Amino acid sequence: MTGGRPGGPAVALGVDIGGTKVLGVALDGADRVVAEARVPTPHGAVEHARRHGGAEGTGTGSDVADAVARVVATLRAEVGTAGGASGGAAPVGVGIPGMLDRRGVLVFSPNLPGASGADFRALLTDRLPEAPLVVENDANCAATAEFLLGAARGADHFVMVTLGTGIGGGLVTGGRVLAGAHGFAGEIGHMLVDPSGPPCPCGRRGCWERYASGGGLGRLAREAAYAGRLAQVVALAGDDPELVRGEHVTRSALDGEPGALAVMEDLGWWVALGLANLTAVLDPSRIVLGGGLVVAGEILLAPTRRAFAELVEGASARPEVEIVAAALGERAGAVGAALAARAGGLW
Amino acid sequence: MTGGRPGGPAVALGVDIGGTKVLGVALDGADRVVAEARVPTPHGAVEHARRHGGAEGTGTGSDVADAVARVVATLRAEVGTAGGASGGAAPVGVGIPGMLDRRGVLVFSPNLPGASGADFRALLTDRLPEAPLVVENDANCAATAEFLLGAARGADHFVMVTLGTGIGGGLVTGGRVLAGAHGFAGEIGHMLVDPSGPPCPCGRRGCWERYASGGGLGRLAREAAYAGRLAQVVALAGDDPELVRGEHVTRSALDGEPGALAVMEDLGWWVALGLANLTAVLDPSRIVLGGGLVVAGEILLAPTRRAFAELVEGASARPEVEIVAAALGERAGAVGAALAARAGGLW
Repeated sequence: MTGGRPGGPAVALGVDIGGTKVLGVALDGADRVVAEARVPTPHGAVEHARRHGGAEGTGTGSDVADAVARVVATLRAEVGTAGGASGGAAPVGVGIPGMLDRRGVLVFSPNLPGASGADFRALLTDRLPEAPLVVENDANCAATAEFLLGAARGADHFVMVTLGTGIGGGLVTGGRVLAGAHGFAGEIGHMLVDPSGPPCPCGRRGCWERYASGGGLGRLAREAAYAGRLAQVVALAGDDPELVRGEHVTRSALDGEPGALAVMEDLGWWVALGLANLTAVLDPSRIVLGGGLVVAGEILLAPTRRAFAELVEGASARPEVEIVAAALGERAGAVGAALAARAGGLW
Repeated sequence: MTGGRPGGPAVALGVDIGGTKVLGVALDGADRVVAEARVPTPHGAVEHARRHGGAEGTGTGSDVADAVARVVATLRAEVGTAGGASGGAAPVGVGIPGMLDRRGVLVFSPNLPGASGADFRALLTDRLPEAPLVVENDANCAATAEFLLGAARGADHFVMVTLGTGIGGGLVTGGRVLAGAHGFAGEIGHMLVDPSGPPCPCGRRGCWERYASGGGLGRLAREAAYAGRLAQVVALAGDDPELVRGEHVTRSALDGEPGALAVMEDLGWWVALGLANLTAVLDPSRIVLGGGLVVAGEILLAPTRRAFAELVEGASARPEVEIVAAALGERAGAVGAALAARAGGLW
């Protein structure tokens, strides 16, 4: 897990499969992003799954693997050659959301339900036979990137939380990614935080990611919209409260709209609730928030920090836990996947 | 962290400070318990604190340290001498509930509120100046004991959960106790699982240990008693529903009383909820349940396993997580403290 080593491959490619997009980057030997490519996740997997209970409608593993191969092809075209050392193909790392086992099989993935059960190592090897391939959990990739190059440098005990369509987690303890017995550690979005809460695509109720993700923000916002507290946001969504999405709220909040700011305050409380639980369990010195929601910046971070101080056990007795935004932004997962590709894996 | 080594100390003493009792054991060089002693935790700390909101009424750190010294004196008398190798004093390990920092200061402890802030290393060194001393979190001690000698042998990734007055946690990943950035990892009883739940002595609401501990069992039982569903249990408690305690329910359930069995079923559901969260975060292959509640045996374990299968993310896709009772029973913490004393610490 080192950066560009003398004699190491010149270029490494990383691809992050998200609920809404497949994002790839090419890193040069000095770990600089020299190319980027993205395509939508096949079949709008997540929105469809969200609306229909999560059991159908997503792209299959093959569709998703095809999308990864298209992103890799674009990156290769951009960097000019196959890009590897000594003329070989550049190594490719792929970050995948959900419970990915050590063979590279995605055994369960609420946010890519159609791809649950897919053998991604096999699907991707078929499509990219010439490249050394690493497949890893997406949030573990993001944690690696922030640890080596970003906001977690110097923090041997930290938690990476990706607030996107769902919530991913990468846990670093003693300077190493915590993988667990089967590689499934860090499924933090599926901590149950309210047994009577709304149903989750994972099949249960009240998971943290129903509240604190992009999907959760949309739900909080629609509740506020139906209650008449979000007129400006509803206008942005074409005057239909049902069409309100997280990004409408974020945009209005950045404009200073009080109703939208109140929803961000609620969101921050729910984010903090899960961070407090993770802190009780893991005792990190730092928490790095990444994923699409973090474009909101301090509008989300400030209420999260305030609520965290109320919600964490022993707040006054405990050294402060720093809560910071990911330095690598939405690229963290892809950059980490490229770093993993170069190193041959995360653990 | 080895057992009785050739040339190692002949005897090691371990003391576990619980919410209701201070329990000590002497281990011989072959890790056999050769003496046991116990005294009540000073001032009935926890029951009083529970009834009065947790902020008062417990023994102070000095009182608790005095109790530890009395237990050590009893053990020394029983094993005949100071018990150490070459005539020196036997090493003493002490397990302490709550957020114990690496200096040996108990910075926060909801279940020993009067002792929060106490410097246990200093208090115990004053009282036991002749003995090599180790102070550790109580549940980390229990985890060590079960890992080396008990129900967690062979499980490099496991979670020790002590269901006593409160809930303690010892997390082992990759064969090592996970301590966190400051030594506070494993405060699993204070995961928030129901934001609108009952107040906790820690100052917040809806912590897991309000539901799944001995105190939580008492609360579930009193609710059932007031609802008229626990006639036999109320009779055991002197015909006053307010006096119903966890042990009354456990005893009736072991007798097969349907109302008490229903309460144990509820308790198992709440235990499973927290275990499901820990599994999502940590991906253990085994969970070991210890503490006083586990005397209930299968009456608690069976409903816990059933509910866990419903509550854990990706149950059908995930290798089974074994949920087993601690092999060392209520002595696990004290035995682990003695093992830590012999090894000079847990990490």
